[in-house]
Amino acid sequence: MNLDSIEEILQAHAGGVISITKATESIKNLSYEDIGFARVDHSRAERQGFPEVIFGQGKTKEQILSIFEKLVARAPNVLITRTNAEVFGVIRNVCTDAEWHEAAKLICLRRDNTELGVGEIAVVTAGTSDIPIAEEAALTAETMGNSVNRIWDAGVAGIHRILSEREILQNSRVVIVVAGMEGALPSVVGGLVKVPVIAVPTSIGYGASFGGVAALLGMLNSCASNVTVVNIDNGFGAGFTASLINRKWQSE
Amino acid sequence: MNLDSIEEILQAHAGGVISITKATESIKNLSYEDIGFARVDHSRAERQGFPEVIFGQGKTKEQILSIFEKLVARAPNVLITRTNAEVFGVIRNVCTDAEWHEAAKLICLRRDNTELGVGEIAVVTAGTSDIPIAEEAALTAETMGNSVNRIWDAGVAGIHRILSEREILQNSRVVIVVAGMEGALPSVVGGLVKVPVIAVPTSIGYGASFGGVAALLGMLNSCASNVTVVNIDNGFGAGFTASLINRKWQSE
Amino acid sequence: MNLDSIEEILQAHAGGVISITKATESIKNLSYEDIGFARVDHSRAERQGFPEVIFGQGKTKEQILSIFEKLVARAPNVLITRTNAEVFGVIRNVCTDAEWHEAAKLICLRRDNTELGVGEIAVVTAGTSDIPIAEEAALTAETMGNSVNRIWDAGVAGIHRILSEREILQNSRVVIVVAGMEGALPSVVGGLVKVPVIAVPTSIGYGASFGGVAALLGMLNSCASNVTVVNIDNGFGAGFTASLINRKWQSE
Amino acid sequence: MNLDSIEEILQAHAGGVISITKATESIKNLSYEDIGFARVDHSRAERQGFPEVIFGQGKTKEQILSIFEKLVARAPNVLITRTNAEVFGVIRNVCTDAEWHEAAKLICLRRDNTELGVGEIAVVTAGTSDIPIAEEAALTAETMGNSVNRIWDAGVAGIHRILSEREILQNSRVVIVVAGMEGALPSVVGGLVKVPVIAVPTSIGYGASFGGVAALLGMLNSCASNVTVVNIDNGFGAGFTASLINRKWQSE
Amino acid sequence: MNLDSIEEILQAHAGGVISITKATESIKNLSYEDIGFARVDHSRAERQGFPEVIFGQGKTKEQILSIFEKLVARAPNVLITRTNAEVFGVIRNVCTDAEWHEAAKLICLRRDNTELGVGEIAVVTAGTSDIPIAEEAALTAETMGNSVNRIWDAGVAGIHRILSEREILQNSRVVIVVAGMEGALPSVVGGLVKVPVIAVPTSIGYGASFGGVAALLGMLNSCASNVTVVNIDNGFGAGFTASLINRKWQSE
Amino acid sequence: MNLDSIEEILQAHAGGVISITKATESIKNLSYEDIGFARVDHSRAERQGFPEVIFGQGKTKEQILSIFEKLVARAPNVLITRTNAEVFGVIRNVCTDAEWHEAAKLICLRRDNTELGVGEIAVVTAGTSDIPIAEEAALTAETMGNSVNRIWDAGVAGIHRILSEREILQNSRVVIVVAGMEGALPSVVGGLVKVPVIAVPTSIGYGASFGGVAALLGMLNSCASNVTVVNIDNGFGAGFTASLINRKWQSE
Amino acid sequence: MNLDSIEEILQAHAGGVISITKATESIKNLSYEDIGFARVDHSRAERQGFPEVIFGQGKTKEQILSIFEKLVARAPNVLITRTNAEVFGVIRNVCTDAEWHEAAKLICLRRDNTELGVGEIAVVTAGTSDIPIAEEAALTAETMGNSVNRIWDAGVAGIHRILSEREILQNSRVVIVVAGMEGALPSVVGGLVKVPVIAVPTSIGYGASFGGVAALLGMLNSCASNVTVVNIDNGFGAGFTASLINRKWQSE
Amino acid sequence: MNLDSIEEILQAHAGGVISITKATESIKNLSYEDIGFARVDHSRAERQGFPEVIFGQGKTKEQILSIFEKLVARAPNVLITRTNAEVFGVIRNVCTDAEWHEAAKLICLRRDNTELGVGEIAVVTAGTSDIPIAEEAALTAETMGNSVNRIWDAGVAGIHRILSEREILQNSRVVIVVAGMEGALPSVVGGLVKVPVIAVPTSIGYGASFGGVAALLGMLNSCASNVTVVNIDNGFGAGFTASLINRKWQSE
Repeated sequence: MNLDSIEEILQAHAGGVISITKATESIKNLSYEDIGFARVDHSRAERQGFPEVIFGQGKTKEQILSIFEKLVARAPNVLITRTNAEVFGVIRNVCTDAEWHEAAKLICLRRDNTELGVGEIAVVTAGTSDIPIAEEAALTAETMGNSVNRIWDAGVAGIHRILSEREILQNSRVVIVVAGMEGALPSVVGGLVKVPVIAVPTSIGYGASFGGVAALLGMLNSCASNVTVVNIDNGFGAGFTASLINRKWQSE
Repeated sequence: MNLDSIEEILQAHAGGVISITKATESIKNLSYEDIGFARVDHSRAERQGFPEVIFGQGKTKEQILSIFEKLVARAPNVLITRTNAEVFGVIRNVCTDAEWHEAAKLICLRRDNTELGVGEIAVVTAGTSDIPIAEEAALTAETMGNSVNRIWDAGVAGIHRILSEREILQNSRVVIVVAGMEGALPSVVGGLVKVPVIAVPTSIGYGASFGGVAALLGMLNSCASNVTVVNIDNGFGAGFTASLINRKWQSE
Repeated sequence: MNLDSIEEILQAHAGGVISITKATESIKNLSYEDIGFARVDHSRAERQGFPEVIFGQGKTKEQILSIFEKLVARAPNVLITRTNAEVFGVIRNVCTDAEWHEAAKLICLRRDNTELGVGEIAVVTAGTSDIPIAEEAALTAETMGNSVNRIWDAGVAGIHRILSEREILQNSRVVIVVAGMEGALPSVVGGLVKVPVIAVPTSIGYGASFGGVAALLGMLNSCASNVTVVNIDNGFGAGFTASLINRKWQSE
Repeated sequence: MNLDSIEEILQAHAGGVISITKATESIKNLSYEDIGFARVDHSRAERQGFPEVIFGQGKTKEQILSIFEKLVARAPNVLITRTNAEVFGVIRNVCTDAEWHEAAKLICLRRDNTELGVGEIAVVTAGTSDIPIAEEAALTAETMGNSVNRIWDAGVAGIHRILSEREILQNSRVVIVVAGMEGALPSVVGGLVKVPVIAVPTSIGYGASFGGVAALLGMLNSCASNVTVVNIDNGFGAGFTASLINRKWQSE
Repeated sequence: MNLDSIEEILQAHAGGVISITKATESIKNLSYEDIGFARVDHSRAERQGFPEVIFGQGKTKEQILSIFEKLVARAPNVLITRTNAEVFGVIRNVCTDAEWHEAAKLICLRRDNTELGVGEIAVVTAGTSDIPIAEEAALTAETMGNSVNRIWDAGVAGIHRILSEREILQNSRVVIVVAGMEGALPSVVGGLVKVPVIAVPTSIGYGASFGGVAALLGMLNSCASNVTVVNIDNGFGAGFTASLINRKWQSE
Repeated sequence: MNLDSIEEILQAHAGGVISITKATESIKNLSYEDIGFARVDHSRAERQGFPEVIFGQGKTKEQILSIFEKLVARAPNVLITRTNAEVFGVIRNVCTDAEWHEAAKLICLRRDNTELGVGEIAVVTAGTSDIPIAEEAALTAETMGNSVNRIWDAGVAGIHRILSEREILQNSRVVIVVAGMEGALPSVVGGLVKVPVIAVPTSIGYGASFGGVAALLGMLNSCASNVTVVNIDNGFGAGFTASLINRKWQSE
Repeated sequence: MNLDSIEEILQAHAGGVISITKATESIKNLSYEDIGFARVDHSRAERQGFPEVIFGQGKTKEQILSIFEKLVARAPNVLITRTNAEVFGVIRNVCTDAEWHEAAKLICLRRDNTELGVGEIAVVTAGTSDIPIAEEAALTAETMGNSVNRIWDAGVAGIHRILSEREILQNSRVVIVVAGMEGALPSVVGGLVKVPVIAVPTSIGYGASFGGVAALLGMLNSCASNVTVVNIDNGFGAGFTASLINRKWQSE
Repeated sequence: MNLDSIEEILQAHAGGVISITKATESIKNLSYEDIGFARVDHSRAERQGFPEVIFGQGKTKEQILSIFEKLVARAPNVLITRTNAEVFGVIRNVCTDAEWHEAAKLICLRRDNTELGVGEIAVVTAGTSDIPIAEEAALTAETMGNSVNRIWDAGVAGIHRILSEREILQNSRVVIVVAGMEGALPSVVGGLVKVPVIAVPTSIGYGASFGGVAALLGMLNSCASNVTVVNIDNGFGAGFTASLINRKWQSE
């Protein structure tokens, strides 16, 4: 018996199919699995083609492995973000088809390659140094079933660089713009397209960039109306939300 | 002859249809109309059903009226945000079907009511004091052809309030969450839905809320992966981007 | 003769029992013991069952040992916080029943296990990475004679995780909530219980978390009325104050 | 039939007493009453002797009155904080026994005077200008059934002033310390007592006090282990939490 | 005898022409005139065609008039910045050819119209609301003998607006760019020209613009190498420095 | 019998001259007088020739008058800082020889004019707008028995202005330097003299001066070794401390 | 056929000389060369005697080498800033006449030594520790064809040090002032000369210097009208802009 | 001939004793000695018994040695602050009587031990971890000819610790108070004494101490009128200024 909503459980209990103790436990298990140091959340991901995701930073090698094993048992696609090569060594031991992406510091398992988007996603960077964060966004979107176009090093001080890619931008369903320093590129891109732009400030810069704060503030104050912003260096969040925007509505 | 892309102009000039002077001027006029103190931008809005928008703050009554007259000559729907009743008096003189929304400090002209979204948009507030900003978002989305559900005063300290609206949330194509103080509501909502959440920090609060900074930081650091953020009190930007997300892709 | 209040000393001097020089010195000794680089404070702790506490950070191995030896001569329970395994090596040499808690970076000597609380204390974390700070709080409370329930990884983006622990929370005399990133969990917990909630922001996060500032501000601006806040990563202070709240009043 | 927990509703529905529609609605009504612009939260307050509280700032006169009428229908004691004399005029029309406290900007209705605390609460200020915030704390605690001692203008630059009140402090179950400028007083008080100290930074000061930030930071960094902190000028939160600490455990 | 360098005074004293007392006084008078509340600085301005400038903010009407009278006695061109119409009323009484510029809040006396620049200066704004600060810059430059081109409302979210003015920009000796909000325009302009760009952040914006800080940080972190920055809203400083850059070298 | 030290009281009680109740009360009264909303501190001022001081900001007219009457009964010289003309009206009614200093917003009663300093104090401002704060410093020092030299408007951008006053500076026992904007003047003055320099940042400036923060930071980072700093706009503190430095040691 | 402006391309296409595909590609190539991770921008530099510049920070050794090879094929002078000795090892392998400047962390290739300035550039530091940043500025200006005078360690606390160099300063066409700590030197220098001053804040300092923020704020608030500012530690930007100011106008 | 004031040089030149070239050079040499990377400032120190001081941070071993050799040739007492044991190795080679103070990271050469103060200086710390900065202050004052009393670990949370040292404090001519965390101790000490108090914030603390900012703000906002502040961790500046305050006036 597969109880996967509170409503079903309520009805099952009312119908006498399950006890009140069982009903309580089912509601708990519905959303997560408790493994001591973590409550692994399965509820939304599994029937939707979302990858399961582990945020690697601040977790030990052993904790990551343990959560990974729980996830891989249920989901075809799994991401581990903000991790390192040493963790990859451990993961590869239990899962030989996992991939290591050095620039993005990301481990990716992709067993289901179904295309899930209605259009394409463009990922743009202002500079060469922004590429690692942009790759985190692009790989997340690809693992979530999207087709991604990469446009690197097209910052505003050489405005022809982004203008020459206008066609790709205008054919995208959503655009992710990754920039450090003054963070001006999302405003320019926002003005060129009629789709949502997700701006990712990066910690690239020095002095009064304050680890990405200058770029973050620039993006929040964008004079383009279609720009929303995620945390500094949060390529994953941008790739994840872009995938939700690009997903065919009510068809999953 | 309607020249509305650089490519067309290039071909027209190459074909000898227009002079190089005319080509240059056409490219200029393509995107804006210069009225001295402002360059009114028509290029994207007009064939897409977007409203034309005037950001009222920092402009004189005369400037707003002058821009408004240019816009209304071309577009069925026009918004004036961050304005006041005095400006409305001036606008109503030239356009009797404009509406004044006191709470949102917004003037709205809506002559084209075509439904343009694929789904519905939910707008949620944490508290009663956040309603004006939320109304700015909701009215913007409605003027852009969307159906909007309003959920007011559902902050996290009484968690049942938002949980009881789960059904509406889960049936939305995109959710806008408006909150001041600690800005925690978007994270909770983000965890309840599988669509994009746009978080709007408000300047509601006192002391260490620093005019909305606490809420802004809370939202940027959300542990929910599907939350993006706009500027403090930027209800308009949230409503605008939500409309783009909700729009049927490649069908306009 | 045990002179342990200024009043007693005053009367003893007035009664001719002690000289004015002795009276002066007694008042000084009453509250601390001067060992050169530190004034070891015994006055409050000893007759109350409080542990003596050494804040390890910024002190040399030799200084910690020296203070420890003064304390252990008087008190059954001693805590050394923010320390390391090397210091533990030195402490164990002189006190073999001291314990080292790796996660919390804390040395604990517990010879008196009397239960001193009226109820139980719950310690909750938003994520796995917050556990070390939460352990500092929990171990402090336990060393101070309390019974502690631990609830790990119950952040708001998966709201079922905390809701399913409501019973434990509602049976606690005081709840400690440890969270980084947006720091939203204390507001939710605060709304679920009718006892004091002590919020501990952690430095877990990145980018605009600013080393815990985002979580700190979120907690200070909590819309729940029963939340108070301690410094970023101050698990000890939370455990200490929770113990005072839980202590039976006027019975020590 | 009085359905006041989810468990009861679940059993009622299982027992066929109520329909699934009714069960759903009951869960909703359990926690709040929806009056359009606000969801009035009754769930916790009413059977516990807590006052119902309206945060007045940012709400219109009409909104406050409307919420007040809902609350007064159920609760004997009601507080309206951060309000003004004009609102009081409206409230007095419908409720002649409400009181206006000018300094604290607080309206207070107190029909139930049952003493609910186990001990006394001391409220201390550093300066004369901190009194309004301290009164907000004291009046809140009194309305919640506590006995309060007020100690005004006892800042650290004249250390005798606070030392001479040591006896009152040491006989309190909890101490609230209200201070602006450098915010040093809670550390001194914290060292004098063995009960929890709640520190309230105020926006009193000028220049580098930054509207209370200096005091807030001082309090968060207190070297006394028994100090927790609330938001700048949040006298209400301090009075509320102090009341919870002082309440007899498990006897209500 | 005209003693206008320390060297001359030194020689005059050595040659016995002036006494040591006189030498001392001459050195003092060389650079300023003491009128009690102010030391009016004449040393650099007078033989160079610079206007004398009074910073009006924070000075009384009487102080401004008094300084103005000292300056006008020596210099053909005088500027009073950050002032108001009331001060202009007083100035016009003593000097009928002074002009009042409402938008820029600036009084200007211009009796010497000699053209002093080698090229032209362009002043650009991102938005309509930035015009007052831009006018301060433009009027300062004009009073200092320059020819100025004004380009208003050419922000980056409609990138065609600035691109269409490329010719004027590229023919300028120096460009001043005035922008609030995200402050991105100077980077774009900097990439289009091969002359110095002076960026002026304005306090235009709301929320996380923090009174111009976002724009300021964006400009300081510009990825264009030819951008330098002045204080928020400091149109005068930009106009002044641009005039120095444009001045013919070693020909005055 | 005049009991003015704890030692005296202790001996009096030991000698049976006073009761233990009286001893306790005497220690309390020693340092302050409790008038309800304030504890008036007399202990240090009266036998030292210091003026009694009331910080006017944040106190009502009635509170100031009440404290003033207590002080004037004991002290010849009284200062009321950060006050206004309306308060002066009230004070003059009870004390006709009080003086109102408009610029410094200070009321001053000076009945004892004894010269108490060993040397002179110089007070310097960078600009005309800094004079009110400088006057607060100068009047405080004069009321405390010092001879003061005023040097106004000698900021570093016209370096001759301060250099020409070198003689006065070098003959001072202590120098107070008052500056807003970049706050550079104390470093220059510090390098010219061999006595302590007290730097007072003012809130004069705009934009990135952040209400005096830029000046404050400049002064704290001064490369001159003899500069210490007080709070923004704290002329009183500077004048007070300068008076202590200038006072003849051990001769009062 | 050399197509180096959009106008030329437009005419060539109109004249049938090139196809529309070729025209499009030419416009793209005009401004940059795409090498995957970077778009190398040649458009402005090459015909103007500007050096090509690589910002080394955040790029790998291989990326720098690859960009360098593209640049050196076209330009006689190339700079690599913010790099290290290891990168120099790689560069020297392909280009034996490149030079390594240890203090400035800069690689410099200089094959064209044509003098391009109208006057001289002075570079001044406040302290010894500021020299590395100042050398970056000086070497940039020299590589761009300027004659540079270096004045080291002339901070304001020993004001004679800068005054004694007045002659060099007054004979310069532009002055670069590099300072950490309080950042006061540019204001003093600005008052001594009648040319533009470019202020470079450095991260030299400790405590409340906040990594250069104190110096940056000081410079932005300079009371001298001829001071503009670049980012903290941005010696390159200062040297680059100074070179543009010093360049003979309209003669290249 | 010893020319040590501008006046003497002026007279010597006027009297024909020295040429104008010589006069110019003399004025330059008067104040400093140029050794390339530094201008060694001798002017004030040498005839006053001040030590010569080298700020070690940010200078190479070779630079420090080179400056040290210049200084030691003229001055009996020399300090090198913020340095390390390796530099001491180099210094000891040329000067065997130099001393290394590990805690304070300070090298000290003291050949002249003349007592120069009128009274004693007290140096107080709040905690054990503040001792290194306090030692820097104490050693500076001792090298400048003062007698110093050290009071370590007397923070306000155990208020008896500082009260028991009241006698030493009240017999001091000036008190230096060194504290991290909340920085409250200077306010308490300021209230106990009638001499100047110099407050030194330290970077001791964690979380919201922000590297000493909390302590710094606390001290700037001190409610004691006799407190001035130096930069975070600036023990040297405090010791230096205290020595100037303590110096007998007009007797050198």
